[in-house]
Amino acid sequence: MTGHTQAALALATEVGKTMFAKDRVGHRLGMQVEAIRPGYARIAMQVSADMINGHDICHGGFTFALADSACAYACNSHNHNALSQALNIVFLSPARLGETLVAEAVESARAGRTATYEIKVRTGERMVAVAQAQSRVVSGQMVEQPAAQV
Amino acid sequence: MTGHTQAALALATEVGKTMFAKDRVGHRLGMQVEAIRPGYARIAMQVSADMINGHDICHGGFTFALADSACAYACNSHNHNALSQALNIVFLSPARLGETLVAEAVESARAGRTATYEIKVRTGERMVAVAQAQSRVVSGQMVEQPAAQV
Amino acid sequence: MTGHTQAALALATEVGKTMFAKDRVGHRLGMQVEAIRPGYARIAMQVSADMINGHDICHGGFTFALADSACAYACNSHNHNALSQALNIVFLSPARLGETLVAEAVESARAGRTATYEIKVRTGERMVAVAQAQSRVVSGQMVEQPAAQV
Amino acid sequence: MTGHTQAALALATEVGKTMFAKDRVGHRLGMQVEAIRPGYARIAMQVSADMINGHDICHGGFTFALADSACAYACNSHNHNALSQALNIVFLSPARLGETLVAEAVESARAGRTATYEIKVRTGERMVAVAQAQSRVVSGQMVEQPAAQV
Repeated sequence: MTGHTQAALALATEVGKTMFAKDRVGHRLGMQVEAIRPGYARIAMQVSADMINGHDICHGGFTFALADSACAYACNSHNHNALSQALNIVFLSPARLGETLVAEAVESARAGRTATYEIKVRTGERMVAVAQAQSRVVSGQMVEQPAAQV
Repeated sequence: MTGHTQAALALATEVGKTMFAKDRVGHRLGMQVEAIRPGYARIAMQVSADMINGHDICHGGFTFALADSACAYACNSHNHNALSQALNIVFLSPARLGETLVAEAVESARAGRTATYEIKVRTGERMVAVAQAQSRVVSGQMVEQPAAQV
Repeated sequence: MTGHTQAALALATEVGKTMFAKDRVGHRLGMQVEAIRPGYARIAMQVSADMINGHDICHGGFTFALADSACAYACNSHNHNALSQALNIVFLSPARLGETLVAEAVESARAGRTATYEIKVRTGERMVAVAQAQSRVVSGQMVEQPAAQV
Repeated sequence: MTGHTQAALALATEVGKTMFAKDRVGHRLGMQVEAIRPGYARIAMQVSADMINGHDICHGGFTFALADSACAYACNSHNHNALSQALNIVFLSPARLGETLVAEAVESARAGRTATYEIKVRTGERMVAVAQAQSRVVSGQMVEQPAAQV
């Protein structure tokens, strides 16, 4: 958290709360926003029976949804609306029914409207997937206060 | 479909039916398997209210789930169990409530246990996302009959 | 080539000639532009001793350079300057000294300033690598004539 | 470097020296191995006139080659031969003639024969590209001594 002003941290927290209040998908999938800071988010989700595919493991779409949501919270944390433009995910081990997945998104770089994130999805110590996301800032802000400086 | 024997086409169809019968995620998300051939699958899904995120567009996780499922049906169509190992998705335009997304997965290449697929997700003529997937053959078959020759 | 006007084909050819005349890297690596059409390019390169790595196979950087160049010719073929923004490459089989690699870039989709390409790199019938590229239109044109309609 | 035994560090160093001695591409492109540890490598390269493309910036193939080489040194550092299987690179800012690029590859995860790396390519403080690589262990070792425990 070094280098973040209290204002930036408070803004990221406020943005996160505002996003989560509108996040029907996150609520429906049981996502929990565990931590949010400028350029960072950690989100947890338990693998439910609804997420299990024909191979009896968690469908990649839900692991992706968790990683993508972590990226969304991280890339909006500066209070400039941003969207995932591309995401590359590598699946390392299957997630099983009842396991709790924790996705951590960390900003790797920013250049103009583009930023990149590395997202790690773990259950306990085991790495389930690693992703690289590319986000793009669009117009608008999440919360009505001066945006953090880019 | 050029180059596919009737046996290979029948096997792909049989594998698809067997997969879909076990595909709880596909059923729950309202996916329809529209076509399946060796190395090819086309799947449709309508964007429901449950899939809408805080930006009022379809959460990327569901677009990904559709693309990943199309890849799963295509990469298992040879009746060698296979899993997505990695998938890179580029989001081109937002999908909105009520739109029907159609994902087409086409095998680009095969080398040993690895195969790659290009997956296009459209709604009508509009391209919503394009993905590149990498699958890996694991042990086992979907249906109990001699596997198609690789 | 269906759907391309003679003007669009002539423009793509002209852009390709203009690009190749300035393409020091392509010349130095021995690249040959074999075909160019709107949204399409095919480029060949022979693996030289300078490209061989410590595993006695072609360094991925040169396979990538060929794929990226094919994408560059394809994404500039409309005479709107464009750059590769991201590229995902999957290596399927090693390329060896003396083999001629042929990269074909095909436009998958376009949305605003962004376009995506699938690029296949083969030697003979063998697939060496498959890539997915994302390009972004920037200002300027390659050749001074009215740009083809996007 | 926490958690690495002296033996693992010494082995990584030895592997790096052995690789570099055979690395014709690295020598020809002027790469310098600045640091190597288990699962980590930092390599520098100056952008030469030979690397400049028609847009007067460094051809992405050379930025990629540096990133891919950093990944190669990092993924072989455990003394199990490994190859890049896939690499996704996002270009953030152009590299110019004479700039020195520094690529740092950091292991993100390992699962069986697969490992993933995040690679950042900078010139000074400016980020030029960020990549995510997927490597696969193959048979053999770089140096003839007992391999580090995986």
